[in-house]
Amino acid sequence: MYRDPVESHASLTPLASREQRPSTRALRVGMIGIGTVGSGTFRVLARNHAEIAARAGRSIELVIVAARNLTRASSIVGPDLPLTDDPMQVATHPDVDVVVEVAGGTGPARDWVLAAIAHGKHVVTANKALLAVHGEEIFAAARVQGVVVAYEGAVAVSIPIVKALREGLAANRIEWVAGIINGTTNFILSKMRDEGLDFAVALAQAQALGYAEADPTFDIDGIDAAHKLSLLAANAFGMPLRFADAQIEGIAQLKAIDVACAEQLGFRIKLLGVARRQAQGVELRVQPALIPATHLMANVHGAMNAVMVKADAAGVTLYYGAGAGSEQTASAVIADLVDVARLDGADAARQVPHLGVHAHATNDLPVLPRAAVSTPHFLRVPVRSASGIQRVAACLAEQQVPVRQVALAARCEGADPQVLVLTGPAAQGVLDLAAHALQSLAEVSGGVTSLRVEELAA
Amino acid sequence: MYRDPVESHASLTPLASREQRPSTRALRVGMIGIGTVGSGTFRVLARNHAEIAARAGRSIELVIVAARNLTRASSIVGPDLPLTDDPMQVATHPDVDVVVEVAGGTGPARDWVLAAIAHGKHVVTANKALLAVHGEEIFAAARVQGVVVAYEGAVAVSIPIVKALREGLAANRIEWVAGIINGTTNFILSKMRDEGLDFAVALAQAQALGYAEADPTFDIDGIDAAHKLSLLAANAFGMPLRFADAQIEGIAQLKAIDVACAEQLGFRIKLLGVARRQAQGVELRVQPALIPATHLMANVHGAMNAVMVKADAAGVTLYYGAGAGSEQTASAVIADLVDVARLDGADAARQVPHLGVHAHATNDLPVLPRAAVSTPHFLRVPVRSASGIQRVAACLAEQQVPVRQVALAARCEGADPQVLVLTGPAAQGVLDLAAHALQSLAEVSGGVTSLRVEELAA
Repeated sequence: MYRDPVESHASLTPLASREQRPSTRALRVGMIGIGTVGSGTFRVLARNHAEIAARAGRSIELVIVAARNLTRASSIVGPDLPLTDDPMQVATHPDVDVVVEVAGGTGPARDWVLAAIAHGKHVVTANKALLAVHGEEIFAAARVQGVVVAYEGAVAVSIPIVKALREGLAANRIEWVAGIINGTTNFILSKMRDEGLDFAVALAQAQALGYAEADPTFDIDGIDAAHKLSLLAANAFGMPLRFADAQIEGIAQLKAIDVACAEQLGFRIKLLGVARRQAQGVELRVQPALIPATHLMANVHGAMNAVMVKADAAGVTLYYGAGAGSEQTASAVIADLVDVARLDGADAARQVPHLGVHAHATNDLPVLPRAAVSTPHFLRVPVRSASGIQRVAACLAEQQVPVRQVALAARCEGADPQVLVLTGPAAQGVLDLAAHALQSLAEVSGGVTSLRVEELAA
Repeated sequence: MYRDPVESHASLTPLASREQRPSTRALRVGMIGIGTVGSGTFRVLARNHAEIAARAGRSIELVIVAARNLTRASSIVGPDLPLTDDPMQVATHPDVDVVVEVAGGTGPARDWVLAAIAHGKHVVTANKALLAVHGEEIFAAARVQGVVVAYEGAVAVSIPIVKALREGLAANRIEWVAGIINGTTNFILSKMRDEGLDFAVALAQAQALGYAEADPTFDIDGIDAAHKLSLLAANAFGMPLRFADAQIEGIAQLKAIDVACAEQLGFRIKLLGVARRQAQGVELRVQPALIPATHLMANVHGAMNAVMVKADAAGVTLYYGAGAGSEQTASAVIADLVDVARLDGADAARQVPHLGVHAHATNDLPVLPRAAVSTPHFLRVPVRSASGIQRVAACLAEQQVPVRQVALAARCEGADPQVLVLTGPAAQGVLDLAAHALQSLAEVSGGVTSLRVEELAA
């Protein structure tokens, strides 16, 4: 099904190879998907239409929407907006200047986005999975056509962190980025801490409240955070997208006792995405990690997101806001549209490069292997009796793990005594061997927990 | 004294009235001032030259610097960079594409900036006083010439908050902005709280450590914060600069006992700049205010800055970083230069409007009078004996001030008993009358403190 668009304009938008006067007619948007993000985008564009035009210098108009369920779509957008159930019709439509892809997924979305680019259209997407997996191909195609592919909504939606990294901090050599960039897992971890819940119980509550999906794998296994981290790292360091090389650990193994014991030492556990530049390459890793309880990042609660950046000139900056939501994501999608409204028709050299630096200057930094990444660690070692603490300490000395603190946990209702250890900086490879050695001690009564401690200067 | 620039190019940069291909030659920068910010800008431009060019798509080169002390300037920039002691020479120099004004002050700086604009040059400045006072005139001149006047370094230097407000949040109707935007006063207030110091002692320590100037008036009286707030409000609400209408209270009247008593009720005192849209106009005010101690804004310590924004689609977002410093300010100045490098020669319609919205769409919102602005309040009332609490409560009832909590302060070493009150939302006019009435009670033994409580949803 396809209804004619309201207005009819020239056919294929000319490629932006020659500089044109900026247009004062409306920027014509075709949108693929009218689910949570799409309906929020429709709503905010309508509600704030005048204010957005006052900022953009021209009107931004939805001219066609592709949806799977046209009846449902019509109930959202009303009778006047043309609808189609064929996304490719939006991607290639002659009256569309920019395609907003908010359908999600990686396979078909890739085809739609590449088709839109081939037809000289700009693209705005909130699809982190698509970009983490197919971003290099998509950006290369966009460079050939001179079009914008913008994706502020792909990371920590309400926070303009992509813009901050690649424009606001453009003067800096960025040293590291650390983010709480998955709201579902932060909600679960906040629940576990506040109410002493085990992971499975907190997950069930998050699902009941709509903070976790029925299949929560992408969130709780850290994959969604790694998608976003690969985008942050590329923009921070001018490197290619390296999602496939990221080290990813989720939170499903965490126990209530881990959270409580970390708390006793003055730390909170957060699922962190960390990208850090080292002499030999880049750390690129998602894992549950301990942060001092007084640190701002430890006080990001519930489904909120925050990203901290250490840069050589600006120092430490932090960006905080909602990491999901219908209008929260729409805020980012429309901000990208406003950028497009200004740059449409301009020479592509006026655009901000897709991944922060111009392609010829990309810095092909290798991702450091997991075993080589060195941080302090937290160990929780259940022992048959309190005297086991000495054997634990001796074992760590044998394994040449530097130790800052060894203590017995204060209370462990019903559980065996717990030896808690804070190590000095040690490579993960060394820690893995030490944890293995601890696990085989006769004095150790259960599974050893080993987590990184993140020292985020503030 | 004037030395020839290293390179010689065409004369007057043509006005950006017609769209040109973006240039690939270096963006040529003339800088006025080589003090703290200027030397930081010189240093970061040199250190990160390749990375900045990789982001900007072209090299950014200093071609001439104006300084009062040429010997000192030469010791900073070396022998190869042309120097002059006449800022006007930089402002009108034929080889300069963009003038960086980091000399400060309002009178001569206005002349230099207007001259640069008249010669078709873009301007980057970190001078909030200049823009708060002369911004409307400067931006009007820049619109005529089609040049950029960028000022990310004028507010919360390390944080790209101007960019976040006018680009990142462009989709939103912004409801309020609240900022800790003066590092000197936040340092003093942090000292007062952490060490129980009175204002004068904390100020002296801040001066000794270089966090406060010898004449700290602009900072401690809230004027510097009001300069910045007027820029934030204009960009948030699409309104003109209204520095002259801002209500400004500083922190010099605060006592250690105010800080301690606020703490007892679970609050911290911060110097806040608040701009809030109401039905009748805009609140625009700088004052010391109470924030719940667990709030992120209450945990912004020392000389750090933070700005919180409530927007209709994005919800609450927060931006945190250093508010002053040589390279921290340079980070913002150079980010502006990177924007200019991309847009130089483009039609002015491609630029982000100077104050967020296009001039024809400016929303001339009136600033609400102080007496009309309603918030909860905190009162500290010294009384001759503890029984005075009843008379205080009765007086507030007579004055029709809604009361949430009345309590005696826990300990007040050496001082009279203190009645602490948290009111419900009440207009400042009502509170002023009530404070006056309390002050005249026989039971009251000293000066009554009245401070706003800021309810910043998080």
